[in-house]
Amino acid sequence: MDNKVCVIIGFGPGLGTAYAETFKNAGYDLALLSRSGVGLRELEGADNSVRAYECDAGDSESLRTALKSVQNEIGEIDVVIYNADLAQFGPIEDVTEIQFEQSWRVGALGLFTTAKLLGPQMSERGSGAIVISGATAALRGNVWTTAFAPSKSAQRTLANSLAKQLGPKGVHVAYLVIDGVIDTEDTRANFAPNEPDEFFINPAKIAETALMLVKQDKSAWTFELDIRPFGEKW
Amino acid sequence: MDNKVCVIIGFGPGLGTAYAETFKNAGYDLALLSRSGVGLRELEGADNSVRAYECDAGDSESLRTALKSVQNEIGEIDVVIYNADLAQFGPIEDVTEIQFEQSWRVGALGLFTTAKLLGPQMSERGSGAIVISGATAALRGNVWTTAFAPSKSAQRTLANSLAKQLGPKGVHVAYLVIDGVIDTEDTRANFAPNEPDEFFINPAKIAETALMLVKQDKSAWTFELDIRPFGEKW
Amino acid sequence: MDNKVCVIIGFGPGLGTAYAETFKNAGYDLALLSRSGVGLRELEGADNSVRAYECDAGDSESLRTALKSVQNEIGEIDVVIYNADLAQFGPIEDVTEIQFEQSWRVGALGLFTTAKLLGPQMSERGSGAIVISGATAALRGNVWTTAFAPSKSAQRTLANSLAKQLGPKGVHVAYLVIDGVIDTEDTRANFAPNEPDEFFINPAKIAETALMLVKQDKSAWTFELDIRPFGEKW
Amino acid sequence: MDNKVCVIIGFGPGLGTAYAETFKNAGYDLALLSRSGVGLRELEGADNSVRAYECDAGDSESLRTALKSVQNEIGEIDVVIYNADLAQFGPIEDVTEIQFEQSWRVGALGLFTTAKLLGPQMSERGSGAIVISGATAALRGNVWTTAFAPSKSAQRTLANSLAKQLGPKGVHVAYLVIDGVIDTEDTRANFAPNEPDEFFINPAKIAETALMLVKQDKSAWTFELDIRPFGEKW
Repeated sequence: MDNKVCVIIGFGPGLGTAYAETFKNAGYDLALLSRSGVGLRELEGADNSVRAYECDAGDSESLRTALKSVQNEIGEIDVVIYNADLAQFGPIEDVTEIQFEQSWRVGALGLFTTAKLLGPQMSERGSGAIVISGATAALRGNVWTTAFAPSKSAQRTLANSLAKQLGPKGVHVAYLVIDGVIDTEDTRANFAPNEPDEFFINPAKIAETALMLVKQDKSAWTFELDIRPFGEKW
Repeated sequence: MDNKVCVIIGFGPGLGTAYAETFKNAGYDLALLSRSGVGLRELEGADNSVRAYECDAGDSESLRTALKSVQNEIGEIDVVIYNADLAQFGPIEDVTEIQFEQSWRVGALGLFTTAKLLGPQMSERGSGAIVISGATAALRGNVWTTAFAPSKSAQRTLANSLAKQLGPKGVHVAYLVIDGVIDTEDTRANFAPNEPDEFFINPAKIAETALMLVKQDKSAWTFELDIRPFGEKW
Repeated sequence: MDNKVCVIIGFGPGLGTAYAETFKNAGYDLALLSRSGVGLRELEGADNSVRAYECDAGDSESLRTALKSVQNEIGEIDVVIYNADLAQFGPIEDVTEIQFEQSWRVGALGLFTTAKLLGPQMSERGSGAIVISGATAALRGNVWTTAFAPSKSAQRTLANSLAKQLGPKGVHVAYLVIDGVIDTEDTRANFAPNEPDEFFINPAKIAETALMLVKQDKSAWTFELDIRPFGEKW
Repeated sequence: MDNKVCVIIGFGPGLGTAYAETFKNAGYDLALLSRSGVGLRELEGADNSVRAYECDAGDSESLRTALKSVQNEIGEIDVVIYNADLAQFGPIEDVTEIQFEQSWRVGALGLFTTAKLLGPQMSERGSGAIVISGATAALRGNVWTTAFAPSKSAQRTLANSLAKQLGPKGVHVAYLVIDGVIDTEDTRANFAPNEPDEFFINPAKIAETALMLVKQDKSAWTFELDIRPFGEKW
């Protein structure tokens, strides 16, 4: 198998699917990891270039097992898109200790587990990329982000630490500060039912920027960038 | 009992002791929480104004039990100094998943548990303060802060979220970005054996600034400030 | 004359007056610099411990002349409160090049002129403090801060540069990120006519925090802190 | 003339030339503005698709005149690359008031002048992009950035303010935080004579990222990103 391999951790509708389509089109073989183990039907074919794996990104054992299966069944992993997230919102009265912990497990511990396994391998090969779907909550806390902000900020500074450790070894770690509501059936229905199209971020365009980052020459790497729709108030 | 009550979570030599002495001198009754349950011998006396409690700040059940004992035995808690910290340093090869998790438990989950219990009570009384011993690692990751930066940044954005939730209810949450090596026997011996006095932060002076924050009038509260010795390169 | 000398650059009603009263009460002799040259009638007395000087902080020659007069007439300057500001707001269509420049002159160039003159002198004496009234606009731009944000951010990074240059020589530079509307007759009438008391920052409390910074021990200096009223949404 | 027009303000060897080549290859007609008025010989041809203009970006009148000449001679401006910069370094003793001012004029006032003229026109057309060559000094001051940091931070918050004003009107403003030494004959000789290739940022790769930003779909715009070589310590 000659294609490069891209693993999407936290595959699902919306942004996960956009990443899959974009990296598939760019010639990558895909491993799609999600709790349901569901794949991307229209992309999967007889050529095995897209495979789905069931795992819980917040459970280190489960995640490690899935990543090793990818390596055994597809090959060395060139690109990781870390898209796992537990969008848990609410003030402290409404957030349980278990939710607070679970939010951190999926957002930060899963990235640690991934980097702990793949970072040294990528370093040894002198190449590889880990791109993380982050959020503005990584930078500051807000009333409703009791669980979300600590999870995303832990994820961001871990990514920052990894970028400084792995960068000099040729491994590119990048963090997307996604600032806005991604356009999906779910967000249209539940978060922003009356908003015009321009209110939303087109997930395919986030994925394009992620692909651009993966293609950046190592003499001029970006660690962090923000992404928001042009009409956003910020 | 008429004195105000100050709980120091993560009591120990160095900064913990400095907080204890400073708040004791300012007239507070003290509850000193530490894993060893050791108190501050010279401060403890027949009047019960200083008591020690054994608890693990990274274990929610243990921490909650200790805080409830404080409330039963001393009274309502007016001030929390959150000083618990697991100073775990190293690149990702040297940090285990357990260390990464434990670092987060002590730094971030313990603060969540504390605020979940005391935040609503303080809000109801319309007063109270939670001051956190933070670090520059809360703002960015570095090669050797694989575990520390994610723990401190989660702590900081949680504090930020709490400040925005509890501030309007009269509860002051403040975060100290301590940037430098605190002067203790341990740090003198192990971290910076050949440094002059001016290299170190005097812990008593950090405690003074913490007390000042607790005394700030609510029309002009500070959420965050940095503290470093004048000779520090930053 | 044995008292320490505090110069307030940008004296006026509101925060300027609060600084004057607070530092006067703390035993400082005062030099009050303002465009009108008006002093603080109730503080001025026969003892010459409070004097007013007319100068334009945005005009280097005028500012330098005033500072030298202070040194000649009162003595060496121990503390500078840099409070000069041109609160010029509006989108780019409404801001002229002259306003954009003037905003920078008063906010940033005046601080440069002050530090250029006094920094080396304070460094030589190994003591001194420069405290700057800053704003959240120093950190980010907004629709209506076309002129204000560039002026305040230039001021803040200049202060940051000065802190790193002068700190090791014993001179304390500190930046107040004032986030909210200061309670004055003018702001009550023009900016926030219908707001309750708790909406406003009490200027006397900002001045108290400034005094605390000036008194900080040099083993634990703060460069930057934010100040806002407890009820503020941020 | 059917090509889109890109103006490079602060054309010169190194990054300016890299921008010119990249945007020329992408099909843009170019206007190259520099103090010397020198163009890019190898790109200029009989077809007038590359023209050079003499102007001082720090002199509003001169800059405005040049931009109007571009509009008259080439056509409406679609893309502005703001690359003007006065790399003035040193502690406060070594920086004159005139250098401090000049640094701000070229870095911040020139961007204001440009946006004041072109922002409303781009807004009316509902399209356009302004990309700024920024620096890490925009975020913090350092010992040797007495003049540079205030200039770059003013530039950055002005860009941020413009992004929020012009974004909703379809005009994309983006800020490149360039963190490292750009590979040019001059920097090789004077700043880093003994560094290996991997120490430097390849200017062509910065220009590629700038072009990518200009091409971003408006549903997912980036305001800010950092760029540094993979071997950089940061």
